[in-house]
Amino acid sequence: SYFKVGVIAGDGIGTEITESAIQVLQKLADVSGSFVWEFTHYDWSSDKYLERGWYMPEDGLEQLKRHDAIYFGAVGSPKVPDHISLWNLILPIRKTLTQYINLRPTRILPGTSSPLKSCQIGDLDWVFVRENSEGEYAGHGGITEVAPGNAIGTELAIFSQAACERVFRFAFDTARSRPRKKLTMVTKSNAQRYGMVLWDKIFWEIAKEYPDVETDKMLVDAMTVRMTLHPKSLDTIVATNLHADILTDLAAALSGSIGIAPSSNLDPTRRNPSMFEPIHGSAPDIAGKGVANPIGALWSAAEMLRWLGAGREADELVKSIETVTEAGVRTRDLGGVATTKEVTDTVCKELENI
Amino acid sequence: SYFKVGVIAGDGIGTEITESAIQVLQKLADVSGSFVWEFTHYDWSSDKYLERGWYMPEDGLEQLKRHDAIYFGAVGSPKVPDHISLWNLILPIRKTLTQYINLRPTRILPGTSSPLKSCQIGDLDWVFVRENSEGEYAGHGGITEVAPGNAIGTELAIFSQAACERVFRFAFDTARSRPRKKLTMVTKSNAQRYGMVLWDKIFWEIAKEYPDVETDKMLVDAMTVRMTLHPKSLDTIVATNLHADILTDLAAALSGSIGIAPSSNLDPTRRNPSMFEPIHGSAPDIAGKGVANPIGALWSAAEMLRWLGAGREADELVKSIETVTEAGVRTRDLGGVATTKEVTDTVCKELENI
Ligand SMILES: CC(C)[C@H](C(=O)O)[C@@H](O)C(=O)O
Ligand SMILES: CC(C)[C@H](C(=O)O)[C@@H](O)C(=O)O
Repeated sequence: SYFKVGVIAGDGIGTEITESAIQVLQKLADVSGSFVWEFTHYDWSSDKYLERGWYMPEDGLEQLKRHDAIYFGAVGSPKVPDHISLWNLILPIRKTLTQYINLRPTRILPGTSSPLKSCQIGDLDWVFVRENSEGEYAGHGGITEVAPGNAIGTELAIFSQAACERVFRFAFDTARSRPRKKLTMVTKSNAQRYGMVLWDKIFWEIAKEYPDVETDKMLVDAMTVRMTLHPKSLDTIVATNLHADILTDLAAALSGSIGIAPSSNLDPTRRNPSMFEPIHGSAPDIAGKGVANPIGALWSAAEMLRWLGAGREADELVKSIETVTEAGVRTRDLGGVATTKEVTDTVCKELENI
Repeated sequence: SYFKVGVIAGDGIGTEITESAIQVLQKLADVSGSFVWEFTHYDWSSDKYLERGWYMPEDGLEQLKRHDAIYFGAVGSPKVPDHISLWNLILPIRKTLTQYINLRPTRILPGTSSPLKSCQIGDLDWVFVRENSEGEYAGHGGITEVAPGNAIGTELAIFSQAACERVFRFAFDTARSRPRKKLTMVTKSNAQRYGMVLWDKIFWEIAKEYPDVETDKMLVDAMTVRMTLHPKSLDTIVATNLHADILTDLAAALSGSIGIAPSSNLDPTRRNPSMFEPIHGSAPDIAGKGVANPIGALWSAAEMLRWLGAGREADELVKSIETVTEAGVRTRDLGGVATTKEVTDTVCKELENI
């Protein structure tokens, strides 16, 4: 096969870990011989924005649509207010390309460990299904100075039946595909009595279509306690855009490091290309030092392969990552001393054996 | 002094831990001899709601205003949708009595431990200042079926300049009163570009009034990572109603148990009585068994004493709680075998020595 991928390395360590992902993906193509990459690199970043005044050109989203998938590094720079960078790059892509699912698996990799005392490898094996198109990120609101010194700012969270139904069905299908067939729905419908109540109601309606999946409901605050104290009790989790944003960072931390966690922004209808990115940000504090953990990026690359139909190669890549963490080739965030390049090269070498 | 306190035990374990708090407060009055309690008990609960059709009588809030303080157990029952119980009891009290600060200290108590591997007593010593009057809990929104099968639900988060200014000033004052003089502001102004951007802007304006306080800003998702992996780096934290709701549950879990964490709903102007309640809920799963941890309730009672001006007695009560946890008299959630009554009686016995 021939895979056309649009690559946006973005800001900070985004460029470093994207380079790492491209190197590994290329290696995989070489050794497997079953597919060929066509990477198109887009230099859309905060630095370029400061130079040119835009993140994406006017037809940027149209350009992206021409690919089979999009690979994304990270966006965010101390030089640009975050809401400018995000609303001119990552968020319009997720929204316009109808990537309404953000899929985020978390588990503890071999050779690494959880910061939790009583959480062994295997005790924490979660898949988060994040609503990725609306909710608290609908982007609607305003700031008005109703009188001098009396500004009012608002944020409107929007929950539409269609978007709730599709994310719940995807979550139930995901839960059903896993051995435990267990889905936990996260909400805050006690304090938020409108949109969140609708969210809950639609969940229980969709649940009727999946009598074989075990369900439960958690308030988002209590969910953090359960993740921390009873990680084993969870399997597949569905949550709103904001709730899952928060909980998946916590999940990554509990699994050892934010540097390892992958994410897939999916348009399950396949009308638009899906986008793959590590969940970590641009990490300005360590950018340029060559020490960023490439594993979140590599695992995201594996998920891209899977989505493109190369499931065998995706599995091989994940296996190689695990062999490398197990062998102790780990970056600082995982307690090791390896550089980005060392981890990447070791994964590449591992791939020669497949 | 003569302290008039309105007591709402509420639902589930709320009644058990409130009984425990009253017993300890009474004991403290007896041994110290420096104040007298006048407790007025309000039987406002979900069970009563099912019987009578209301949580509070029409003049309920007026009745509460007559007290020096309010002591609250917990509300929430499997028999009543949560948004009904909360919006008819706890939330109107917080809002109508202008309790615009929710103050939530967290630390690891002697003899107990964090679920985190590398977090010793003293490494986790945080105070959360939660905005308690508006934000994501403004209670504004709706559900409309714009077409059959196409329902839209909304939740409007509201950030007003006045409310932001007062919570930030309170947070800076709190940070200033602590040795490290360090305040972390939590936001999600990257993905939420209106109200949250105003929140940030006002924070930096108020910060100018406190040049002696060190400040930093964290995105709420990244904050969970920092709390988990670098607990020592945090001291005082200010966050929105929803963000702090989530983060304080996580904080309690990281400090050992949600059962120990106290909260104070404060009207710092003292025009209205403040309200004191453990942060845990009604815990229907363990209600009626006599095994609930009373420490969150007792610590909340200590904070009430402090607010009423009995700082010395508040300190004594906190010290007694610590002596008791250290001595190993702990409920199940802290790895012990003691009942609610055993912990309570042991704290009371401890108070005889003051
Ligand atoms: C970069 C930002 C918009 C993003 C989010 O909040 O969704 C990030 O935190 C993530 O989780 O992907
Ligand atoms: C009971 C509920 C309204 C409440 C909240 O969300 O504020 C609780 O979780 C808390 O933290 O006090």
